[in-house]
Amino acid sequence: MAVTLINVFSVPKGQEEAFVKWWEDVKADITSQPGFISGKFHRSLKPDSKFNFINIAIWDNEEIYWKAYEKSVTPMKAKLAQLGVEMVPALYRVAFEY
Amino acid sequence: MAVTLINVFSVPKGQEEAFVKWWEDVKADITSQPGFISGKFHRSLKPDSKFNFINIAIWDNEEIYWKAYEKSVTPMKAKLAQLGVEMVPALYRVAFEY
Repeated sequence: MAVTLINVFSVPKGQEEAFVKWWEDVKADITSQPGFISGKFHRSLKPDSKFNFINIAIWDNEEIYWKAYEKSVTPMKAKLAQLGVEMVPALYRVAFEY
Repeated sequence: MAVTLINVFSVPKGQEEAFVKWWEDVKADITSQPGFISGKFHRSLKPDSKFNFINIAIWDNEEIYWKAYEKSVTPMKAKLAQLGVEMVPALYRVAFEY
């Protein structure tokens, strides 16, 4: 069953542009891996929102996503830490659609 | 232009069922207000995820959403605090669809 990745980011003021560049690099790599279905990258309307960027993507299943994550995201984590970005990724199922 | 509400919840262990009941009550009320388009309520696959529930909904615009929030969510906040739930709602635009 398909799963929903929701990755919640807190990006410090002034680092937004560098972070978006980082995310575009990760996206180019991870979307070429097996199991990726589709995604939407969100930016908060108010720049001072606690979670100012949230990525939501659909993947084939849990196992295939974490494999792709290890290959595409893990090697890029040092750069993210340099930018002072906090990231909380987790997989979800849709409990209700309304 | 339509906006995306993303509401990130941290629900303490043992309070999940009471929280889902709370959310269903809020949903019944808020979706009857002007401006609501559609929504998906997500639950993390792993119960110990930091953000174990995330609600994502589409609304007509920013102003209309916060009006509905004031009417439907604000009066229900005390109950949420009793449950020990942390909630961070914000509005987003889709920066990239991929």
